[in-house]
Amino acid sequence: MKFLLLSMGVALVCGFQPEYSRSQEDLSDEKEQKWLSGHWHLVELASSDTSLIGVEGPFRNFIQNITVENGNLNGLFLTRKNGRCIQLSLIALKTKEACHFKLNYHGINDIYYESSKTNEYARFILYNHHNGKVNVVANLFGRTPNLSDEIKKKFEEDFLSRGYRKENILDVSELDHC
Amino acid sequence: MKFLLLSMGVALVCGFQPEYSRSQEDLSDEKEQKWLSGHWHLVELASSDTSLIGVEGPFRNFIQNITVENGNLNGLFLTRKNGRCIQLSLIALKTKEACHFKLNYHGINDIYYESSKTNEYARFILYNHHNGKVNVVANLFGRTPNLSDEIKKKFEEDFLSRGYRKENILDVSELDHC
Repeated sequence: MKFLLLSMGVALVCGFQPEYSRSQEDLSDEKEQKWLSGHWHLVELASSDTSLIGVEGPFRNFIQNITVENGNLNGLFLTRKNGRCIQLSLIALKTKEACHFKLNYHGINDIYYESSKTNEYARFILYNHHNGKVNVVANLFGRTPNLSDEIKKKFEEDFLSRGYRKENILDVSELDHC
Repeated sequence: MKFLLLSMGVALVCGFQPEYSRSQEDLSDEKEQKWLSGHWHLVELASSDTSLIGVEGPFRNFIQNITVENGNLNGLFLTRKNGRCIQLSLIALKTKEACHFKLNYHGINDIYYESSKTNEYARFILYNHHNGKVNVVANLFGRTPNLSDEIKKKFEEDFLSRGYRKENILDVSELDHC
């Protein structure tokens, strides 16, 4: 039982159950990590504060790749600073809580890995705490540069349900990713 | 295996592992729900916006009891409105994501059940989305009216690490709970 508890890592406890039924032989750390690891594309981006995701905003970062190491998420992004496209590497550290990561970047961030479908999409909700304010930034990543209208609509509806405006959501699937 | 996945409810996947090692026979829905159900006391309260937790603020609510029904959390609180002490019942609905609940109250709330120790304390982080703004409200509940300095200090340090001030934390263990 103890083995089973330990081997049920990030993916299982973060909302996969409804979309993917796993068998016992899937429960190896190596396979677990493959679910989030690898190449991703930023498809949609939304924030309570649009300046955070506007051009050269601190959270307008285009995911390229995720590596999972010891339960921590190492994200490699492309971002624009002073008119130049640069690489940005961010490491979100695991916490005691499943699905919850901490990231020191532009203040402190609580990141919740909300849902995913193996090899299709992943959704992260980030709460940025900066200078005594909190803002939300939502990211929809795809294994492909674009995703189905259904997946994108669900992401948008979820964000709008929090009381924000449609203008605060950016579909970046067709944009230059930097 | 399927049974095991289904039977591992709220408690397991929300950060219990480091503090409580469970055996297979613990995994019944009934026992699972007992971990959160029952009588609680509000010990500490913190927010990015102190007006939310000030006297008659919408989140200055003193937990009395939690009931878990079909995975949803039904909380019974005491709160003060227009100088009178009244009961408030709030139902946080489960989501597809473990540890994550939604509550319609003073806007929309994402509630994350962060950590707990059976029959000792429970910690909830609530992100309130209201009129296009987001604020954080952190709650520390105890099975007893007060908790050890160690548990309270950890709650405070976690809140301060997000960049907020000590004045935004209220120790209500000695206050009139209404």
